[in-house]
Formats: sequence, C-alpha cells, structure tokens
Amino acid sequence: MKAKLLVQLDSDAAPSLFDRIVAVDAGAERLFSYGGVKPEQVQDFVHGAIFTRGQEDLSSTAIFVGGSDVSAGEEILSRAQKAFIGKLRISLMLDSGGANTTAAAAVLSIESRLELKGKRAIILGGTGPVGMRVARLLLRRGAEARIGSRIRERAATACAAVAAQVGSSVPPPTAWPWRTDADMAAGLDGVEVVVSAGGAGVTLLTAAARQAAKSIKVAVDLNAVPPAGIEGVEPMDKARALDGADVYGALAVGGLKMKIHKAAIARLFESNEHVLDAEEILELGRSLAG
Amino acid sequence: MKAKLLVQLDSDAAPSLFDRIVAVDAGAERLFSYGGVKPEQVQDFVHGAIFTRGQEDLSSTAIFVGGSDVSAGEEILSRAQKAFIGKLRISLMLDSGGANTTAAAAVLSIESRLELKGKRAIILGGTGPVGMRVARLLLRRGAEARIGSRIRERAATACAAVAAQVGSSVPPPTAWPWRTDADMAAGLDGVEVVVSAGGAGVTLLTAAARQAAKSIKVAVDLNAVPPAGIEGVEPMDKARALDGADVYGALAVGGLKMKIHKAAIARLFESNEHVLDAEEILELGRSLAG
Amino acid sequence: MKAKLLVQLDSDAAPSLFDRIVAVDAGAERLFSYGGVKPEQVQDFVHGAIFTRGQEDLSSTAIFVGGSDVSAGEEILSRAQKAFIGKLRISLMLDSGGANTTAAAAVLSIESRLELKGKRAIILGGTGPVGMRVARLLLRRGAEARIGSRIRERAATACAAVAAQVGSSVPPPTAWPWRTDADMAAGLDGVEVVVSAGGAGVTLLTAAARQAAKSIKVAVDLNAVPPAGIEGVEPMDKARALDGADVYGALAVGGLKMKIHKAAIARLFESNEHVLDAEEILELGRSLAG
Repeated sequence: MKAKLLVQLDSDAAPSLFDRIVAVDAGAERLFSYGGVKPEQVQDFVHGAIFTRGQEDLSSTAIFVGGSDVSAGEEILSRAQKAFIGKLRISLMLDSGGANTTAAAAVLSIESRLELKGKRAIILGGTGPVGMRVARLLLRRGAEARIGSRIRERAATACAAVAAQVGSSVPPPTAWPWRTDADMAAGLDGVEVVVSAGGAGVTLLTAAARQAAKSIKVAVDLNAVPPAGIEGVEPMDKARALDGADVYGALAVGGLKMKIHKAAIARLFESNEHVLDAEEILELGRSLAG
Repeated sequence: MKAKLLVQLDSDAAPSLFDRIVAVDAGAERLFSYGGVKPEQVQDFVHGAIFTRGQEDLSSTAIFVGGSDVSAGEEILSRAQKAFIGKLRISLMLDSGGANTTAAAAVLSIESRLELKGKRAIILGGTGPVGMRVARLLLRRGAEARIGSRIRERAATACAAVAAQVGSSVPPPTAWPWRTDADMAAGLDGVEVVVSAGGAGVTLLTAAARQAAKSIKVAVDLNAVPPAGIEGVEPMDKARALDGADVYGALAVGGLKMKIHKAAIARLFESNEHVLDAEEILELGRSLAG
Repeated sequence: MKAKLLVQLDSDAAPSLFDRIVAVDAGAERLFSYGGVKPEQVQDFVHGAIFTRGQEDLSSTAIFVGGSDVSAGEEILSRAQKAFIGKLRISLMLDSGGANTTAAAAVLSIESRLELKGKRAIILGGTGPVGMRVARLLLRRGAEARIGSRIRERAATACAAVAAQVGSSVPPPTAWPWRTDADMAAGLDGVEVVVSAGGAGVTLLTAAARQAAKSIKVAVDLNAVPPAGIEGVEPMDKARALDGADVYGALAVGGLKMKIHKAAIARLFESNEHVLDAEEILELGRSLAG
C-alpha cells in the first residue's frame, strides 16, 4: 500500500494554506503543492503522477485543483483529464476558491428545508465563483435560478457561463440586474429561496425588503464578515426561524462545507477514476447527511 | 489530536533549509514552507491557519518567521498578530537570520560567568541582526551596551532601532564608532563584556588589544570562519580561560543556539498564544540551562 | 535515528513531480523541494544541510539534483561538492532528466546480452542528455561509441562534451553525422549495438535498414511514444528476438530504470559520502541485477 499522495495544483502564486491544512487533516499522507500553475504545465504534472506508481497503486495518488480563480481551475482540471492515457489516470478534485464545497453546503442546507424542484431562487451577488456554483447546482436540482447583480453585464456574463456548464438538459439561469429598492421588491415576488453570495461586508438584502417578501422560505447568507449580506441573519444561524423563513449564516454553512471538503479529499483515494466537480461534490455531501 | 503543523513564512525567495531541518527535528510533523513572503500576504496565511481547525486544536498549528532580513521578519510577525480574530490565534516565533536564538545563546553564555546588571558591554560589528539582538538582550538584563561599528552612521542607526524596541524602561544603547587602535583601547576601558558579531573572516579585536584591556571578563566571538573576530578565540572555546577572561567561540555558542531553537519550536505547540521574539526566547533558553 | 531527509534541488522552475513521487516511494521520510535552483544558491543549501544535524547523523540527509537541463544539474552537483567542509558532507545524486538512471538501465540491458568490450555501438539521436550518458557509459565499458545526429555540429559538440567527461583513460566517442539511407547503411556496417535516444515520435532506423545491418546483436529503443525510434521494436519488448537481434523497448527499460532510481535514493542514506553520477548509478544497477 503506497502512501496517499495529494498533488495540489493552485493557480495562485502561493498555494492555499487553507487547502493544505484541510488536505492533511483529511488524510493526505504526502502533499506536494505547486503555486502559479499554468495550463501548459499540467500535462507534465499528470505524467509525473501516472508514470511513477504501478497501475494497481494509482488510487493512492490524486490531484486537488485550487486557487482564487475558478476559470483557471477549470482549465487546469480540463487539461488534467486530457493528459490521462487510457487506464493510466488518477482522481481529480476542483475546489478553486472553495466554490464547489461552499456551494454544495449551501444547496444541501436549502434542500434540508425545501424540495427544490420548480422553486424560484435568487442568488444575490451571484456573479462570483461561489454564486455561479450555487446557481448551477440549484438548476441541476430543478429550481429556477436568477443571478442577481447591480451590474447588468456581469449578470449576463455569469448566466452565459453557467448556461454553458449545465448544457441544454435544464433551463438556463436568468440575469437579474437591479438598482433600486423597488427593483428588489419586484424581483423577490414569488421567490422562495434567497442566497447572498456577494462581497464581504456589503448588505444586499435589507431587513425591510426581506420582511416584505413573504414568499421567502429559506435564506442563506454566505458572508461571515459584518455587516450581514442579508440583514438579520447571524453567522451561526442554522435553520433559525426568522420572519417566516428558515435562515442560515456563513459559519453554519461553513461547518458543513468543511465536512464535505474533507470527505471529498478522502473520496479521491477510493479509486483512480473520480472527477469531483460541483455536482459530484453535492452528491457526496448528500451522502454524508444521509 | 491533530498533527503538529508548522507554517514557515520566509522573507527570502527560497525558504531556509536550515530552518526546515531544525523544524522537523524539533517535532513539527507537517511543515508548509513559503518563500518570498510579503507583508500583504500574511493575513491570508493566518486566516488559512485559524479557520481550518477547531478552536480546541489551534495549539497544533504555529507560524515560524524567518529569512535573512530581520526587519522584514518583524513586519511579518506584526502583521500576523493583527490578523488574529479574538481567541482565534496561533503561536508565533521570529528567528530571521537566526538572530534571536543566536543572541539568546550568546547572552546566556555570558550570564553563566557574570551578573550582567550594571556591567559595561561592547558589541563589535554590532549593527547586523545578531549584534542588535545581543544589544537588546544585554540592555534588558541591566547592562550598559555599546554598539560598535567602523561606520559612524551605521552605529547610530542600529542604536536608534534597538532603542525603539526596548522602549524607555531601560537606558538606550550607545553608538561606538571607532577607527584606530587608540580608539579601540580607549573604548575598551572598563568594559567587562565583549561580543564580536561582525562579518565572517574579519578580525575586529586583535590579541594585543584584547590583552591590553584588563577589564574584560567575558569575550564571545560569533564568527565561525577563520580568521577569528576576536584574535585568539577558537570556535570550540566554551568558557576557556584566556589572558584573564573566559572566552566563547562560535561553534560552542552555536550548540546552545540549536538547543534553544529546537526547544522554541516545541514550545510553540504547547499553547496557541505564544509569541516568541528575543526576550521570550532568552527566557526559554534560561529555563533549559536551569 | 533522524528522519531520512532528502533535499531536491531542481534547475526547472517547478521541481519535478516524477522525482518527488519516486523519492518518497524509495523511502525519503521528509522531502524538501526547491525549483529554479541557481548555482550560486547551492552553498547555502549545503551549509543548511550540514550544520543542522550532528556529524553522526549526516547520513540521514542527502541531496538529489534534477531538472530537465543536465548541464545545469552538473553545475549544481559540482558546487555542492565544493561546499562541503572536511568531514561535514552529505551524499549526493544527479539524475537530471532521468539521464543517469535511464542510461544505466539501457546499458545494463545491453550488457545482459553481450560483452561490451571492443564492440562497436551507435547511439542514434545521441546528442541529448540520455544519449550522451549512454555513450559515456558504453565507453567506460570498453565499447567504441558513435554519437549519431543528422546535424553535424551537434554530433561534434556532444562528442566533445562526453570526451571531456570520460577523460583520457578511454578513447573518445566519434561524431557520426548522417543524412541519407546510404549513410545509415554504411554507418551500421560492423555495428553490434544500436541505441535510439532521439525525440518522441521520430523513426530514426527503418525496418529495412535494421534488417540489412546483419551485424546488429542488440537494439534498444528509448522512445515510448509511437512511432518507434527503431521500426519494429515495441515499448514492452525485453530481449525479444527480432531479425537476428535482441531488442528492448522503452517501457521495459523504463521498468529497470525505476528500480535503479529507487535503489539509488535508498543508497544515499547508507553513508554521508556517496556521490551518485552516471558510473556509480550503473554500478548500483549492476548490483541489483546480480
């Protein structure tokens, strides 16, 4: 039995310390970290990984792709898959910016209160990596997803990117640009799920607007730094009842995210064929909760 | 119990191999090393360290700050302390250029022969990182410290920096510029402690000058590369009697420095609240000798 | 007993993942990897390695030199040896581009079928790192070696470099530039050993030319990517009889290379005085086969 060896390919100059610590706590016995990874380097890394151990030991080696830029991570993941040679392959996981594990934790939290199929959801500040991953997963679960942004072009760009990822099997997300309180009130009409995924310390949904939107059943705020993204939600909230909705704060979701993150690392070493992106990590998270 | 995980933040491009080897030999089970660390990166590193393990496990993670530039290391240490969030903190150690552990070993060697309070000490070649740390510690122990340099401005700058560190509770060090043998003879009058901390291979105190200065009781040469910084002192000297003084060579002091360095690394994992800079490392060294 | 600690000094920007995995699978308990290593950094690395552990523990620390550029690796190896201080030294291994372990595996394969002394050998595509190492080792074993290239100057340059390495104790290699099928046929006259060490996917010796050269007794193709460097040789061939010769493919030689590579890493920790370059690695490989 070979040592469990994780190769961290990070698109940022300094490989994430957060990801390194989680990796070793999740059971990676050896961790080789590379920062500033460029797509053209990936083939060499993959060949180094698949040509050193016998085929029967390939499940002891895996690659974790991280960094703050999810698009860069997606390109690295794609290049890694193309570098495999037949059965000479190893398991891969993408979690740039923590987007996949955070989005999975958010969606699982929502699902625990509500059947998503056919529901209307809005992701405020939804054009960043986590917001786009949340939209993607909500669509996969049968919800209608709107990506909110105060900048029209960014909302449209994010929707196009998510639509390209989910393909034609599900309806695409809708861009939802807004500027005024009136826009917000109109936009929330009939919405049952609200996720706030904007920048730290910016309140996107005021208490007044939240209370006025009677249809909201679940609200998730992914911002841990005060003030809250959704006014009235506290970081430790976990399905707390608030004005008729069940609300989740960033630290509560973060706790579940950590469990999913660690379980995903452990999963990598169970076979040499896993490719863990948004959907696979959501499924894995669901199996933990079950 | 989580693995003891040390994060090495080094201001030099390549993280010090010396520090890495000492770290693992001192018990760090995982070592994550970063080179070329800039102050603006420190908050991310600290957050990566404090947000990954539960609060009860924070004493299993620590940061070691190194590199050849002590000022850069001090800035990294300062930024790290500012990045803590309440009880979410981890232990820190600064030993850029080995300055703290070397200075502690030198001062402890001197103290073993002499009560420092009220004594007059000169640090030859004292404007470098080790010399300035020696001056700082001698002042803390109640000695009068003179920082010697053949360049007047450098001596003054070093004194100002040390004075700022020790604050107003103790008298500041005195700049002691010298050029000629006569300067040296005059300067050594009444001096009981001499430390040579200059560059490798430069003799700062000749045998004749040393023998003429009858007041010298302890002399420490921190230069391991011939010729000696203090003529007549051998690298392995450890309290050897020489012309009426007890003398210490670089390798003897270095042996104690290694013990202190390792003990300091081990200390980091005993709580999540240690901040080990010059004074704390001197105290720790004293407890080892006791 | 200190942990077995390997320091990887790699001339490429990203330290080779291949070499890292082999190192840990070969028993290195701690691996400290540096990329983009410059000759002027080497002394500091060596001093960091020899000044941290006691003299009786120096066999627990070793340096592996790698990277795609063999000349850069040779310079690093040379600098490391110069940085030793008397008995304060550690074991070293050079395997830039896998050249030493691959060449050793190729030559040992040939030797298993043929006594090399006095035999005529040609290395096709022999101007690269592996080809030059094969020539060097064949000369050491008493063979006559020709370095083939379609570019006259490259063949001459490679011969001069190999001649400088082997010194005057053995005859120098001969440059063998060729362009046409007729050149090839003439050149192969009386040749008993052919090694193909050219770039991936370029056929250097056609089946027709091979079959016409009746003197060939052993042929080794080091190219694993189709088409073969020697037409008719398959990657897994291991002493397969083909038109009167015993032929070896790249994967068969590669299997032996991996065994030699791992054994060489393990050897480093048996004393603090090994310097493993081409000849030493060949000897080590021979002892494995015995």
